[in-house]
Amino acid sequence: MPGGRLFAAFVLLLAAASVEAAPRNVVLFVTDDHSPDAGCYGNPVLKTPHLDELARSGVRFERAYCTTASCSASRSVILTGLHNHANGHYGHEHAYHHFRAFDRVQSLPVLLEKAGYRTAQVGKLHVAPKEVFHFETAIPGNARNPVQMADNCQKFFSANDGRPFFLYFCTADPHRSGGVVAENEHRPNPFGNTPRGYPGVDEVTYDPQDVLVPPFLPDTPVCRAELAQYYQSVSRVDQGLGRLVQHLKAAGVFDDTLIIFTSDHGIAFPGGKTTLYQGGMTVPFIVHGPAVTRPGSVTQVMVSHVDLSPTILDFAGALPKDHQFHGRSWLKVFNQPDHENWNEVHASHTFHEITMYYPMRVVRQGRYKLIWNIAHDLPYPFASDLWEAPTWQDCYRQGPDTMYGQRTVGQYIHRPEFELFDVEADPHEARNLADDPKHAERLAELKTNLQQFQKRTGDPWELKWRYE
Amino acid sequence: MPGGRLFAAFVLLLAAASVEAAPRNVVLFVTDDHSPDAGCYGNPVLKTPHLDELARSGVRFERAYCTTASCSASRSVILTGLHNHANGHYGHEHAYHHFRAFDRVQSLPVLLEKAGYRTAQVGKLHVAPKEVFHFETAIPGNARNPVQMADNCQKFFSANDGRPFFLYFCTADPHRSGGVVAENEHRPNPFGNTPRGYPGVDEVTYDPQDVLVPPFLPDTPVCRAELAQYYQSVSRVDQGLGRLVQHLKAAGVFDDTLIIFTSDHGIAFPGGKTTLYQGGMTVPFIVHGPAVTRPGSVTQVMVSHVDLSPTILDFAGALPKDHQFHGRSWLKVFNQPDHENWNEVHASHTFHEITMYYPMRVVRQGRYKLIWNIAHDLPYPFASDLWEAPTWQDCYRQGPDTMYGQRTVGQYIHRPEFELFDVEADPHEARNLADDPKHAERLAELKTNLQQFQKRTGDPWELKWRYE
Repeated sequence: MPGGRLFAAFVLLLAAASVEAAPRNVVLFVTDDHSPDAGCYGNPVLKTPHLDELARSGVRFERAYCTTASCSASRSVILTGLHNHANGHYGHEHAYHHFRAFDRVQSLPVLLEKAGYRTAQVGKLHVAPKEVFHFETAIPGNARNPVQMADNCQKFFSANDGRPFFLYFCTADPHRSGGVVAENEHRPNPFGNTPRGYPGVDEVTYDPQDVLVPPFLPDTPVCRAELAQYYQSVSRVDQGLGRLVQHLKAAGVFDDTLIIFTSDHGIAFPGGKTTLYQGGMTVPFIVHGPAVTRPGSVTQVMVSHVDLSPTILDFAGALPKDHQFHGRSWLKVFNQPDHENWNEVHASHTFHEITMYYPMRVVRQGRYKLIWNIAHDLPYPFASDLWEAPTWQDCYRQGPDTMYGQRTVGQYIHRPEFELFDVEADPHEARNLADDPKHAERLAELKTNLQQFQKRTGDPWELKWRYE
Repeated sequence: MPGGRLFAAFVLLLAAASVEAAPRNVVLFVTDDHSPDAGCYGNPVLKTPHLDELARSGVRFERAYCTTASCSASRSVILTGLHNHANGHYGHEHAYHHFRAFDRVQSLPVLLEKAGYRTAQVGKLHVAPKEVFHFETAIPGNARNPVQMADNCQKFFSANDGRPFFLYFCTADPHRSGGVVAENEHRPNPFGNTPRGYPGVDEVTYDPQDVLVPPFLPDTPVCRAELAQYYQSVSRVDQGLGRLVQHLKAAGVFDDTLIIFTSDHGIAFPGGKTTLYQGGMTVPFIVHGPAVTRPGSVTQVMVSHVDLSPTILDFAGALPKDHQFHGRSWLKVFNQPDHENWNEVHASHTFHEITMYYPMRVVRQGRYKLIWNIAHDLPYPFASDLWEAPTWQDCYRQGPDTMYGQRTVGQYIHRPEFELFDVEADPHEARNLADDPKHAERLAELKTNLQQFQKRTGDPWELKWRYE
């Protein structure tokens, strides 16, 4: 064999080996109560330059969904690849709510650690028990200051012990916070914003006149005042992302790191958070790094948070053969604009707070979406922050016939057992097709689909098809 | 001082010292889904000679109540002196239900162990986590064979290491069991009875013609067939009690041992178990041993299961000063026929199974009882064993207007928000006085009482007075 060809073969071999051995770091960046409100999602007002930059060199998902629009339960889904009805984490973990995963559940950080990863979390955790959601390292940081959080991750990035890393980076922004902005006549919630700001953060403020009011919210002065606060909080997240990227680059690991940016669920307004309407289910979802082959592309591949753990484990080469996730890895398809086998997701919400029982099960198939409100006899329960939300109270006080987004206050509170929407023709879910004879066959099919999903995933509430 | 008086003083001193040092053993005997159905409670058919004997030399309570008519939650109340809405054990512990007490809760066995007791449990436990409900010793035994359970306690009784003992003895009788009695035309549930019986147990069988049908159940052939099975299961419990007493006597500790006999809640029929009607709340309650000063007496002192832990700790001289129980010790009053300050109890039920959300709060004050059905919009959820109960299905199949005890099937399933009963004039709770103008003032008072109780005991569902 001539020397040149031998050398070429050697180089090829080396390249193959280096692919095998390439650091496969992962950063999972999860924001709090955040709809896909960002420049890259078509909002010209909200300033998110770093997220937009990530999208420009990554892949942006347009049909990514949570499976439950409640912080704690959703995080348990993200970290286990199991619907919360099957991992035991039916609702909030903290205080008297006291939900937690079954001891037998194997979480993403534990599986990655077993596969040779070093693992760390910074910011909001909100899952239990600790043994199930074990991380090697807990990096300190104010979850309202993503810039500080990012700064605190520097050591973790540079402390290379030969193992790839997994960082779970969770902001508390743009969640609602305590109190009101007293100097504003509409007394909006501050969404974590404070008059003195946060060290290292350049607060970006917004004029309520400029914000875009999503159609599931009421276009009122109070709502606009609240959205301006929310925008400011989102801009803080964006700066944290920028700082994180800066540190990854400085540590020389940026190109070796898969970054997934998403939120636990949609915006903290009635109509968003806690509901499985589009305002609650739709999340920002941007993927950047080694697995991306079409930088700057947009995909219609339909994914949900149950897919996150299997995908990350797949990327890590650590997908356990004997483990039954409810989701699946989208690693081989997400660079495509669309995929016929990625056109269906399910969602399952049962509790927010322990006092807020309202089990809902959802199947989204193509353009259609069926919501089963299992406890539809009950008034829709309110997360305490949503009940107190000035935007809600402002409409609620005016009585049940007041419009709140696409429905009245009364319709928001009292829901039918089944809600069937054509999400393409009616993206804001104003027209329930469940009683429309033209859709009877589709309704029946989707009900069957839903019950099969419940059986397949061991959903205790499946029995409600038969009991009562 | 003359020798005679000195001697007398010395004897008195000795007596006082020996009272101080007297072994203060405790046996807490808890049966499963058992109403006060026994000879000593006025049932001439049901054979419970050993319980009757215990009552003849002990004190029998006629107004003793559980606080939640669900096995797991009720046991958490018994062992903590806290309502389940405050100890975190809101419902079933096992399988996917996954409820458990807060880690911070200090349970009866742990407090007794700290106070120098040796502690053991035998039979059904049904509470979690283990660390909170720690017993030094777990004595093996088939919970369906109380005689065997008692035999297995012999070593524990005789193994005197100088410490007094606490034994938590819990049968699975007379709970419903799997399957049906196939050879009986009515196919009743066997309530744990098997054709081959249990080693050491002389099965006592009953003729369905002879059983007493409580007025909250339908007097149907199916119900009678089921009650005959239930009676047989109760007689098995009684034999276990007899054997236990025999072993306590043989070990020479019977006279030094406080025995408390009760059940977790009422009989496993719709109208009993899971409800807070009298059929669910009323429990057998007999106390025997050192603290009894009027053997064979009956008391109207009104107690509930939250009083059990503080009373036992009081008896043990181990009532912690800094511990806030929801109940209180009845040790100083239970030998009296009645007591004006013991005429009120509260109850709090939220879940049976995790899928069976139906929070109810109750105040019983003298002859009046108020039930607040917080989720009254929902159909009343059925424990799976009650749903399948042949007695229920037999009525349910006949339609919503069929009588089931004192109410129709439809009324049983759909309940008003408030139910106010005069339990003395109307012991089977057939007449709801909540809408009766004559009782408007009483209703208002009891509502206030209930809300104050909820505030005082940190009940998360207190917010339902304000939200929704």
